[in-house]
Amino acid sequence: MSVGSEGDKTLEAICYRRGSLQLLDQRKLPLETLYLDIHDTNDAWDAIKEMVVRGAPAIAIAAALSLAVEVSNLASFDGTSNDASVFLSKKLDFLVSSRPTAVNLSDATVKLKEVISKAAATAKEANSVFQAYIEAAEVMLEDDVTSNKAIGSYGASFIKNYLTDSKNITILTHCNTGSLATAGYGTALGVIRALYADGALERAYCSETRPFNQGSRLTAFELVHENIPATLIADSAAAALMNAGRVKAVIVGADRVAANGDTANKIGTYNLAVSAMHHGIPFYVAAPLTSVDLSLSSGQEIVIEERSPKELLHTRGGLGEQVAASGISVWNPAFDVTPAKLISGIITEKGVITKNGTDTFDITGFVRKTSGNL
Amino acid sequence: MSVGSEGDKTLEAICYRRGSLQLLDQRKLPLETLYLDIHDTNDAWDAIKEMVVRGAPAIAIAAALSLAVEVSNLASFDGTSNDASVFLSKKLDFLVSSRPTAVNLSDATVKLKEVISKAAATAKEANSVFQAYIEAAEVMLEDDVTSNKAIGSYGASFIKNYLTDSKNITILTHCNTGSLATAGYGTALGVIRALYADGALERAYCSETRPFNQGSRLTAFELVHENIPATLIADSAAAALMNAGRVKAVIVGADRVAANGDTANKIGTYNLAVSAMHHGIPFYVAAPLTSVDLSLSSGQEIVIEERSPKELLHTRGGLGEQVAASGISVWNPAFDVTPAKLISGIITEKGVITKNGTDTFDITGFVRKTSGNL
Repeated sequence: MSVGSEGDKTLEAICYRRGSLQLLDQRKLPLETLYLDIHDTNDAWDAIKEMVVRGAPAIAIAAALSLAVEVSNLASFDGTSNDASVFLSKKLDFLVSSRPTAVNLSDATVKLKEVISKAAATAKEANSVFQAYIEAAEVMLEDDVTSNKAIGSYGASFIKNYLTDSKNITILTHCNTGSLATAGYGTALGVIRALYADGALERAYCSETRPFNQGSRLTAFELVHENIPATLIADSAAAALMNAGRVKAVIVGADRVAANGDTANKIGTYNLAVSAMHHGIPFYVAAPLTSVDLSLSSGQEIVIEERSPKELLHTRGGLGEQVAASGISVWNPAFDVTPAKLISGIITEKGVITKNGTDTFDITGFVRKTSGNL
Repeated sequence: MSVGSEGDKTLEAICYRRGSLQLLDQRKLPLETLYLDIHDTNDAWDAIKEMVVRGAPAIAIAAALSLAVEVSNLASFDGTSNDASVFLSKKLDFLVSSRPTAVNLSDATVKLKEVISKAAATAKEANSVFQAYIEAAEVMLEDDVTSNKAIGSYGASFIKNYLTDSKNITILTHCNTGSLATAGYGTALGVIRALYADGALERAYCSETRPFNQGSRLTAFELVHENIPATLIADSAAAALMNAGRVKAVIVGADRVAANGDTANKIGTYNLAVSAMHHGIPFYVAAPLTSVDLSLSSGQEIVIEERSPKELLHTRGGLGEQVAASGISVWNPAFDVTPAKLISGIITEKGVITKNGTDTFDITGFVRKTSGNL
């Protein structure tokens, strides 16, 4: 099978064929386009931890596919179908530990484990379990692109309806939620792509997204790549840009959405939501329903990963030359939580979840109502 | 005469003796401590433009002293006292053009021109005019340190009185307003220094201050240098830090304060003010009255300088390696304007200007009331 992207136009972050996986090393972008071979789950664990691949959906798919490659290339497996099931489950648990905040990854493993259990219950040979796993991982890759295109389409229609001046829409986004963060097309950046394709986008603004510069390195790279009119700003210039009337809406992605709509996303998202609220600008989260974790009643239950001080002290996410003063202590949370009260709507592959005139999102109701109709 | 600093403890950004001036090249900090010789106003113009020296008060003093050095070292001057006056005035106008947003510089030239005119009116020789100028420039240097210490003292007392939990004060600041931005001690950072000296400061937080990293390079350097407990954050993490209850007050400097209190300061200041308001955290501007421009009725009259896209596209303020995607357009305003309604108080060398229960600052009244009593 061939790979998760929509042709020449957009970038391929995940290059998969059965038995082989390559990941675009996003730490090297935008200066170098280098693909790393991922032979097994150990390689994938390192790649996720070291941010070769990032973006919650892309992480889940890269992890799942790495295990598909590992079992495709197993010389032999000495065990029953149940042994195969245990083998796969342990590998999935190991993969989850690479980036605990990304709910898509742990969700994906739950679903993949169901596939494995089912296969193990009926299959006579270990190999049948492996085959079932491989096919399920490949379907995840295909589904992600389909899902993102639906997010783009629902989001673009919703925003065009909401904003009266629908030919001159300007959108501010944060971090990278595009082809590089997903299997293709993107979530928040997918909505921007769809608005542009519809002729409704005047300009996209992308924030630098310190300290890892996903905005200036990756989102800017994608926007330039597709000739979408785009301007880069420092994260701290967002409020001034809003105050100048240059932002009609903010759209961001999500690493995890709680049942009440509280959203964990890249550090700085909350800052943008506070500013958007102050300026009366609508603030949207665009994410597949796999990013929703109904087991969390609110964002207070989301554990925030703190990353290395080096990301602020040195250039290139900690790998480059020293910038900051030696000896300064650093607080470097990877994410923050934006409370639902600051969010205008959650754009999913099954439609836009709004508050319907109330103060809260009914995400559980939305999921129940729309389940099975993608 | 010796130089604008208060002994070994703090850094010397401006090293002046009559006839010689050296500026600490702040672009090289924190990795390298390199002083550049400033022989004349041309050298100073370049140093200001290229941000060898930055910070509104430091710029004004460095500029004034560069002209003092230039005339100290004049081999001969063929002209009358009036010719000397014209010579000095033209040089001052030239210096102002290096950084038009910094009101301290244009204010300083107005005052220095008065000194020159007065001297020219009474002096018989050009040399007497030059001497009068040199002495006035040297007084500016001394006055700035005195003024900053008064800002620190007034600010620390005010904040301790305002915050009940006065032994555990945490302050967030932006950009650099310390010894490196002034002739010594600093404005906003001077208040932090004074709180620390009083045993009332638990921790200072400094924001990175993209794109020129004055926070991570300079403020962090000063705080480490003086062993003040301090933590660096990404600009975009400020709202999350506030939401976590870790900021008791925000204190920033000012490049220019309008008559109504609207304040132009480093890009990102407005962003912090919006966040502080959202979280109910007091937001203070600390600045000498020389930063107040009563001729501007509001911040809308302040012209905002836009700087080179390279500052975001490359490391080291545009001089280092490329970071961002090639071809992306950039919006890089050097400053933003924080409206007075988001400002809790303006800390000056003559006391703290508050709204006294009203919605507005009476800065003109404050200046009238306090003039002459420093």
